[in-house]
Amino acid sequence: MICDNLSIKEGRLNFAGCDTLDLAKEYGTPLYAMDENKVRSNCRAYTNALSKNFGDKYLALYASKALCIKEIYRIIQDENMGIDVVSSGEIYTAVAAGFDMSKAVFHGNNKTPYDIDFAIQNKVGFIVCDNADELPLIENAAKKAGVKQNILIRVTPGIDPHTHDKINTGCVDSKFGVSVYGGAAFEVTEKALTCENVALKGFQFHVGSQLFDPTPFLQAIDVMTDFMVLIKDELGFDCEILDIGGGIGVRYVEAEPQPDIEAFIDSIAKELIGCCDRKSLSLPFVCMEPGRSIVANAGITLYTVGSVKEIPDVKNYVAIDGGMADNPRYTLYNAPYTVINAAKADKSNDYTCTVVGRCCESGDVIQRDVKMPKPVPGDILAVLTTGAYNYSMASNYNALLKPPIIMINDGKAHISVRRETFEDLTACQK
Amino acid sequence: MICDNLSIKEGRLNFAGCDTLDLAKEYGTPLYAMDENKVRSNCRAYTNALSKNFGDKYLALYASKALCIKEIYRIIQDENMGIDVVSSGEIYTAVAAGFDMSKAVFHGNNKTPYDIDFAIQNKVGFIVCDNADELPLIENAAKKAGVKQNILIRVTPGIDPHTHDKINTGCVDSKFGVSVYGGAAFEVTEKALTCENVALKGFQFHVGSQLFDPTPFLQAIDVMTDFMVLIKDELGFDCEILDIGGGIGVRYVEAEPQPDIEAFIDSIAKELIGCCDRKSLSLPFVCMEPGRSIVANAGITLYTVGSVKEIPDVKNYVAIDGGMADNPRYTLYNAPYTVINAAKADKSNDYTCTVVGRCCESGDVIQRDVKMPKPVPGDILAVLTTGAYNYSMASNYNALLKPPIIMINDGKAHISVRRETFEDLTACQK
Repeated sequence: MICDNLSIKEGRLNFAGCDTLDLAKEYGTPLYAMDENKVRSNCRAYTNALSKNFGDKYLALYASKALCIKEIYRIIQDENMGIDVVSSGEIYTAVAAGFDMSKAVFHGNNKTPYDIDFAIQNKVGFIVCDNADELPLIENAAKKAGVKQNILIRVTPGIDPHTHDKINTGCVDSKFGVSVYGGAAFEVTEKALTCENVALKGFQFHVGSQLFDPTPFLQAIDVMTDFMVLIKDELGFDCEILDIGGGIGVRYVEAEPQPDIEAFIDSIAKELIGCCDRKSLSLPFVCMEPGRSIVANAGITLYTVGSVKEIPDVKNYVAIDGGMADNPRYTLYNAPYTVINAAKADKSNDYTCTVVGRCCESGDVIQRDVKMPKPVPGDILAVLTTGAYNYSMASNYNALLKPPIIMINDGKAHISVRRETFEDLTACQK
Repeated sequence: MICDNLSIKEGRLNFAGCDTLDLAKEYGTPLYAMDENKVRSNCRAYTNALSKNFGDKYLALYASKALCIKEIYRIIQDENMGIDVVSSGEIYTAVAAGFDMSKAVFHGNNKTPYDIDFAIQNKVGFIVCDNADELPLIENAAKKAGVKQNILIRVTPGIDPHTHDKINTGCVDSKFGVSVYGGAAFEVTEKALTCENVALKGFQFHVGSQLFDPTPFLQAIDVMTDFMVLIKDELGFDCEILDIGGGIGVRYVEAEPQPDIEAFIDSIAKELIGCCDRKSLSLPFVCMEPGRSIVANAGITLYTVGSVKEIPDVKNYVAIDGGMADNPRYTLYNAPYTVINAAKADKSNDYTCTVVGRCCESGDVIQRDVKMPKPVPGDILAVLTTGAYNYSMASNYNALLKPPIIMINDGKAHISVRRETFEDLTACQK
């Protein structure tokens, strides 16, 4: 099993102490199931490792976009973490959950004037200024509101993390941030320091996603501390806060390693402390932004098999009652997933098939060349590691209703997000 | 201009008789705008050509998945068309719009038992039986409801339309339907004819999407009429209805041709009539399922530019206030789109840029290497031909709210789908 919250009991897949077939029966399918204890233990992997290395000079920020629902915000707050948010919608949801917004950092390559006003009204701790066009928007909004807004500047250190193109954000060629190379980051920093209603506190960067090796972080830290020296020498500004982003990988399939968050953070800390020491910088307060690695392996999705179609000499298609509407990640990125036949979890994986969704689109595939015990209509399939970027990216394509999310705590489940209804689907329509 | 509902007046882009800058100002951005007259003229291109060739023995079925909203169903009904639906959600929406469901055809590779009951309760005219597993579900549901349900059988004729993999549904290797080759289609037909509560009326096929050449249709018609001969000879069943699917292409960019729907249907009709004649088949009642080509060029999306980021020697990024959440088609398929700088529509297209969305994801791109007059923050960009598969595939990724749809009729606009609110976003959450 790829995660320790999965086990097999009497041939049936168990998740977070619950029998998955019982969950499917009680709540229906498709069904997102989340394991609260795993969310919490993932949070603690970060906070413990950060605390060990940085004492009390750190804050782990949950990257909301992985899964933005009120119940997650309540758990995150309980785990003494902050959040990163990327839209007014995420700010609204966090506020509705009672989140302390002084521990929120607001990201985005294109915040609208509305967003910036909304963030300031809701007392978001830090706005991350993405670019030169955004700085006067923040300055003017803060002035209008009569506040001095704390900001960080998003800097692109120009590191290629050798990861998937679509989630590679640290290179020079990026829609995010201002580059160290060419001087754009310096220019925005210089301008920010002249703003009356903006208090520059430091810098943020993000090298990429699904990283299994800390090297890109270490390279970025070297570039960023060089940049901090330049800014200190030229502009007299000491970086108080360095937000090093997120991106630690998640194990979707057996072939992938299980990243060791503590070892990852230890090596990042060693590099940062070493760089600051060598370059005569005070060690800044460190923020880190895990998202996927907090919630991904805390979630699975349960589906019911509808048809098994065997095309001789071609392929076996197993169709489920969800698909790209609730999990577009294979269609978008050819993302790997592990699929388990929940009722036959101890049987031999001797049947090869392509697991497809129910959308009227050939590309609606959950995973190709899956090996599992042969399913029949009515079987429950579990797709693992769906806690991140599944509900958050879900659509109503084909007028399908978004599935519910149940939260499991100590073997007991409750509904955290209810299933959409037809009335929800048409609520905005005249 | 790629479509005749677009023009330039005093340097500003006009759409369906409205100034796009005025629309953006009145309704805000992002904004989906639809041209009712274009929807209607697209409907008539089909109904006129079908009527010319088949007299009253035809029905054009709007493929709802392209854009499933109540107002579109009302227009479609007014244009004397039927619909194809692919889920209970689409059935619900059509019923809510007052659609005559006897003119509805229910598709899908994996209809759930709930869906089939719901279709029968709502008196859907035809259920398209996709596969052997589905037939007993329909039979049992019809029996339970005490009705005889009309069905068609979805047949894969095994034609490769040489189109994009993800929207290629006519090949033997398809999750849809039962194949002529290998005998699966014959077997299901044979079984269907023995069902007491199912009335087999004919067959349906779909060769693919975004077709600019009728050849795959003609090849499929040859295969299908051979199959109809086999079924007639072996099982004594005369195919009453042949549903030839949809897939006529849509022009997204100048480099693509403007398909001639009448010529397309003329050549299909000639082939079908010729095949039936040569093979001694009575000409069946013909259904056709246009979706994209009814609504795509009847829609545009308006966005506001937030930032213009020039990375020397690398790229210029123009960021808009929407993106993959309201239009995931570039991210999914590298789909081409034409982008116009609405306020400078008569200026020279001398600036090359990548138009990116506001989602925190590098892959959130609307179009690469766009040529337009250089935009500045606050400019309105129009992305053309977004009437199909934009609203229908929209998500709330990054907790963004789905934009409204306005419907324009004779230069007057009204809100057809209102903008989502934060309350909508969190309505299902505990």
